[in-house]
Amino acid sequence: MSGEDAPAQQQNAEEQKQQPQETKSPAESPKTESKPDPPPTSESTEAAAAADTPAPAAEKSSEEDAFSYRALVLTGYGGYDKVKLQVKKGKPALKSGEVMVRVKMCGLKFADLMARQGLYDRLPSPPVTPGMECSGIIEAVGEDVTDRKVGDKVLVLNRSGLWQEVVVVAATNTFLMPEGMSFEEAAALPVNYITAYLMLFDFGNLRPNQSVLVHMAAGGVGIAATQLCKTVNDVTVFGTASASKHEVIGQGGVTHPIDYRTRDYVEEIRKISPKGLDIVLDPLGGSDTNKGYNLLKPMGKLISYGAANMLSGQKKNLFAVAKTWYQQFSVHTLSLIQGNRSMCGFHLGYLDSETELIAQAMTAILDLHRQGKIKPRIDSTYHLEQVGDAMRRMQERNNIGKIILTTEPMKEEEKKEEVKKDEDKKKDDKKKDDKKKEDKKKDEAKKDEKKKEEPKKEEPKKEDKKAEEKEEAKKEEN
Amino acid sequence: MSGEDAPAQQQNAEEQKQQPQETKSPAESPKTESKPDPPPTSESTEAAAAADTPAPAAEKSSEEDAFSYRALVLTGYGGYDKVKLQVKKGKPALKSGEVMVRVKMCGLKFADLMARQGLYDRLPSPPVTPGMECSGIIEAVGEDVTDRKVGDKVLVLNRSGLWQEVVVVAATNTFLMPEGMSFEEAAALPVNYITAYLMLFDFGNLRPNQSVLVHMAAGGVGIAATQLCKTVNDVTVFGTASASKHEVIGQGGVTHPIDYRTRDYVEEIRKISPKGLDIVLDPLGGSDTNKGYNLLKPMGKLISYGAANMLSGQKKNLFAVAKTWYQQFSVHTLSLIQGNRSMCGFHLGYLDSETELIAQAMTAILDLHRQGKIKPRIDSTYHLEQVGDAMRRMQERNNIGKIILTTEPMKEEEKKEEVKKDEDKKKDDKKKDDKKKEDKKKDEAKKDEKKKEEPKKEEPKKEDKKAEEKEEAKKEEN
Repeated sequence: MSGEDAPAQQQNAEEQKQQPQETKSPAESPKTESKPDPPPTSESTEAAAAADTPAPAAEKSSEEDAFSYRALVLTGYGGYDKVKLQVKKGKPALKSGEVMVRVKMCGLKFADLMARQGLYDRLPSPPVTPGMECSGIIEAVGEDVTDRKVGDKVLVLNRSGLWQEVVVVAATNTFLMPEGMSFEEAAALPVNYITAYLMLFDFGNLRPNQSVLVHMAAGGVGIAATQLCKTVNDVTVFGTASASKHEVIGQGGVTHPIDYRTRDYVEEIRKISPKGLDIVLDPLGGSDTNKGYNLLKPMGKLISYGAANMLSGQKKNLFAVAKTWYQQFSVHTLSLIQGNRSMCGFHLGYLDSETELIAQAMTAILDLHRQGKIKPRIDSTYHLEQVGDAMRRMQERNNIGKIILTTEPMKEEEKKEEVKKDEDKKKDDKKKDDKKKEDKKKDEAKKDEKKKEEPKKEEPKKEDKKAEEKEEAKKEEN
Repeated sequence: MSGEDAPAQQQNAEEQKQQPQETKSPAESPKTESKPDPPPTSESTEAAAAADTPAPAAEKSSEEDAFSYRALVLTGYGGYDKVKLQVKKGKPALKSGEVMVRVKMCGLKFADLMARQGLYDRLPSPPVTPGMECSGIIEAVGEDVTDRKVGDKVLVLNRSGLWQEVVVVAATNTFLMPEGMSFEEAAALPVNYITAYLMLFDFGNLRPNQSVLVHMAAGGVGIAATQLCKTVNDVTVFGTASASKHEVIGQGGVTHPIDYRTRDYVEEIRKISPKGLDIVLDPLGGSDTNKGYNLLKPMGKLISYGAANMLSGQKKNLFAVAKTWYQQFSVHTLSLIQGNRSMCGFHLGYLDSETELIAQAMTAILDLHRQGKIKPRIDSTYHLEQVGDAMRRMQERNNIGKIILTTEPMKEEEKKEEVKKDEDKKKDDKKKDDKKKEDKKKDEAKKDEKKKEEPKKEEPKKEDKKAEEKEEAKKEEN
C-alpha cells in the first residue's frame, strides 16, 4: 500500500534542486523527515499520535469526559507528516439544524494536497481538521431537524473538518445513502461527482454527439466525468493518462486514451478531431489552459477547475507555483467574441453556501447511481494512521479512482507491520537522499566540466529530458 | 421616419469635440456632409444613386444585358452617406448547391453600424454590399439543390451581401418561411433570434427560476432575448432601456425595466436580487462588462456579444474606440475559479461556417414561432434609398424592435418628399453645426474665465453632466 518508489525519486530530486528557493512557513518544523514531530499544541490537550507512528493515545482519555474520538489534524503547512492523528475529547455541542455523524469512510481529493502545502485558501489555518466528504451514520439530531433520524446512513459534504470519527454538520449538508451503496462508495461520491456534474451539465451544457477532453482521466474527477459523459448519447471522450492506465479508463468509457508522457495530446486530438472539442475540463492550469483554449470549437467551453501544475513534490515548491501562476491563463472578451468561446472556472470549495444547487446536483447523481449509470471506482482504502501514504499515492499519481480513508482502527499486528514498513521507508528515503546528494555532486561536477568545454551538449540534453519527464509526471491522475 | 433630433444634437456636439482626434480613412471623402459624394469606383460601372438623394440610376442600365438590380454598396468607411444605392448588371452565375433569391426585405443590425465605421472585420473591404439577413423568393436553383425550388419563400442568413434585390447564396443558408409569416418578420428573425437563442440556451444554459440581465432591451436582440426567456418557466428579466420604452418592453416580458439614464442599474438589480444574476447578456463592452461580471451569482454566466460602447457618433470616434478597448474586460482563470463563473463571447458573424449549429438553432426558432411563443417586433421599414435614415434611427436608439429595409421601389411622390426632407435635414444640420461652433466658442471662453477664477466649480459640473448624459445615451437600444 505504500507509495511507489520510482516517481518519488524523480520528485525528490526536483525538490532538492529547488530547496534554496523554498521558504519555510512558521508552522513548519525544521527537523529532518526521518524523525517524527512532537505532538502539536492544538486546542486538544490530549497526547497525539503522529500519523506514521501511532501511539496508544486513545487510552489516555481523561476520565472527566468519557467522549473522545480520533481526528486527523493538519498541524502546519508542509510534507505528508504534517497531517497527524490526534484524539479530541468532549462531546461536540449540537445546534439547531445540525446532526452528529459517526464517520465510517472519508474521501481524499486533490485539493487536500494543495491545502497541506498552504495552497488552498478555503481550509482554515492550521491546526485544523481537513476533509470535505465522508459517509457515516447519524448518531444525534439537533432541534428543528425533521428529515434525518438517528441511524440514518448518510454521505456528507462540508467545507472542511470531516477527517475524524465524529462530525457535527448542518443537516442540509447530509444526503441519505441509497439502498445497496457501500460506505466507501458514499465517501467517494460527493466531491468528484458534484464537480464533474456541474462542470459538464451546468457550464458545459453537454449534449449528444459532442466531444470532451478529460485530463487526469484515471483520477477521481476524471473517472466521474467519463461516467457522466457516457450518460449522454454518442459523446466522444479524450482522456489523458499514463499508458499503464489505458486499459482501465478505456473500459470505463474513455474513447481515446492518450499517453501524454509520450505524445503531444494536442496533436493527437487534432488528428482525430480536426475541428477541435466542445468541452475541455482543465485541472492543470498553467500552459495547459492555453492549449485547451486553442483546442475549442466555436461554441466550445473550457472549464478550469484547478492548478495541479502548481503541485511539484511533497512540500510547496515556489518555483512550480510561480511558474504556474505566471503561465496562468487570462483572456480578453474580444478574443472570446471572435472565437465564440466560453471560459469557465469551477471549484466546489467556493460553492459551499449554494445549498440548493448542491442538493439538486446530488439528487441527480444519486438517481444516476440508482439507475446503475454511475459507480465510483475505489482505488484503495487507508487507515487514518496511513494518511501520509494515501496522500503520497495520489500525489505520485499511482491511483486509478478514489482513495478512501477509513476510521476503522488498525489491528495490532497491522500496526507492527506499519512500524516496520515505516522504518524500511525511512531507510529507503535515507538511501535516496544519499543517492540524490551524490547525484547532485556528480551533476555539479559535470556542470563544471561543461563550463570548461562548452561545445559538448550531450549532458544538458539528458538533464532537460529528466526535467521534461518530471513536468509530465505532474499531469498524472489524482 | 427621419431621425429624431434631440439625441443627434447631443452626439454631434460630442463628435465636434473629438474631431481633432479622428483620423480619416483613405476611402473617406473630405467633403462636407451636405454635398452628396460622386459615384464610387466600384466594380459596377453603372452610375450610382447616393443613398439620400436617389438619382434615376436604374434607367441608365446597359442594353447589352437586360438583367440588372439595385444594390446598397458601402463605398468607404465613414458616416451614413457612405452606403449608396447602385445598380448592378449581369445575371449572377449559379454554382452547384446555390440558389438565387429575389429579395423582399432585409434586416438591419448593430454590427452594420460598426461595419460602416470600419469596426467590424467580417465585412470585406469596401466597395462591398453589406447585409447578413433577408427574406425573399427563390428565383433559380443551382445543380445538386434538392430541397429548394423556384417560388419557395425563404429567409436567408449570409456573412454579407444581402442588401440588394438579387442574391446568390448556398442553399444551406436559406430556411423555408413557415405559413403565415410575413417577409418583414422573416427578415427580422435570423440574426437577432439566433444570437439570443445560442447565448441563452447554449452558453447560458437557461433554466427555470433563473434571472437574466438584458441590456438594450428594446433593441432587436433585446426583444428576441426577452421573448426567449419567457419560453422558460419563471425567468426574471431585468431590462435596461430609456423610460419612454418601459411600457412596451414590460408588455414584451421584461420583469424589471431599468432606466439606466437616471438610475445605476447595478444598484437597482442588487436591491431586487441581492445575490446577483444567473446570466448577463452584454452588448456594451468596456466598463459595463466588469459591472456585469460582478453581478454574477456563483455558476453565473456573462455573455459578451459586442462593444456598442465603441460607437459614438456617426463616424469612427477613436476616443470612444480607445476608451472601450482600454476598459475592455480581461479575466484570469483563478478569478473565474474562485467565483465559479463563466465568461463567454458570442458573435454570429464569426459562426458562418457552423452550418449545422445554425440550422439547429433556426429550426428551434421557427418551431417556437409556429407555436406562437415568439414574434419579431418590427420597429419601422425603410426603402433602400433611406438606409441612412434607418441607420441613424438605430444609432440614436430611437427604435423599439427591428428596423427593416424593403427592396420595393419608392414611389415618385415619395422621392420628391424625400428630396425636400433631405434639404430640410441639411439646413437643420447646418443650423446645428453653426450652433455647435457658437457653443464651442462660448465653452472656450468659459474655460478661459475658469482658468482665471479656479474656485468657481459650477461650469465644469454642467459640462460633466452633459458628458455623462452622452455616455448614457450610448447604451440605448439597437
